[in-house]
Amino acid sequence: MKILSRNTVLMFVTFSSLFICNNAFSQKKDQMVRIAEIEIEPAYLDEYKKILKDESEASVRLEPGVIAIFPMFEKENPTQVKILEIYADKASYQAHLKTPHFLVYKNSTLKMVKSLKLVEMDALDVKTMPALFKKYD
Amino acid sequence: MKILSRNTVLMFVTFSSLFICNNAFSQKKDQMVRIAEIEIEPAYLDEYKKILKDESEASVRLEPGVIAIFPMFEKENPTQVKILEIYADKASYQAHLKTPHFLVYKNSTLKMVKSLKLVEMDALDVKTMPALFKKYD
Repeated sequence: MKILSRNTVLMFVTFSSLFICNNAFSQKKDQMVRIAEIEIEPAYLDEYKKILKDESEASVRLEPGVIAIFPMFEKENPTQVKILEIYADKASYQAHLKTPHFLVYKNSTLKMVKSLKLVEMDALDVKTMPALFKKYD
Repeated sequence: MKILSRNTVLMFVTFSSLFICNNAFSQKKDQMVRIAEIEIEPAYLDEYKKILKDESEASVRLEPGVIAIFPMFEKENPTQVKILEIYADKASYQAHLKTPHFLVYKNSTLKMVKSLKLVEMDALDVKTMPALFKKYD
């Protein structure tokens, strides 16, 4: 009887762990983290920056599923752009592709983009994400 | 007299603009944005992730000048790590290098790191940074 009860406890712990692990995994599977690596035609750099600035600001402000769109330019070679993009899930990303601000960006910058590479990433730990950024002001 | 007064207004506008532009530029110059591109020895990947998780969480929590340390792993090749690092200024970065949590990370992961490339970046617009991230929870 004592052994049985220990087994019951062990089973409970095992199933609880599985449940917790599965939940954590689902969360991570839903989320999309990506770095877009883009090379811009030098003649269009200033114009591209202005369009990208409007698009990234509007996306984060208007779309609940857009967690971050954070554009950066290499100091040594500013035509090399990297954009960190974080979406709550695939549906949020699909919805983003249909927004007016994204379509304006996409269509008006087509001729400015020399190359585009989308690198899908996994964040180290979704649960600690809020601890990895401070509000910057 | 009317012309002189218009010139005075023009001069005022010009000097004000120069002052505002210079301020915006100083702000951007102070801030450090970087992507660290790291390749990890496959055998050490799990151990490396644990150490990096502790270090990045402690840095953002304990250091006022650490705005973000956000580690990511390529989905297709998880030994390729990219870390977005944002520091308020160079002094904050220099102070970070002397913290116990960074020194533990640096010393304990030396043997795990195959290559390290630090790519200095400029954010698109420092002023819109708070608008580019949402709290993720």
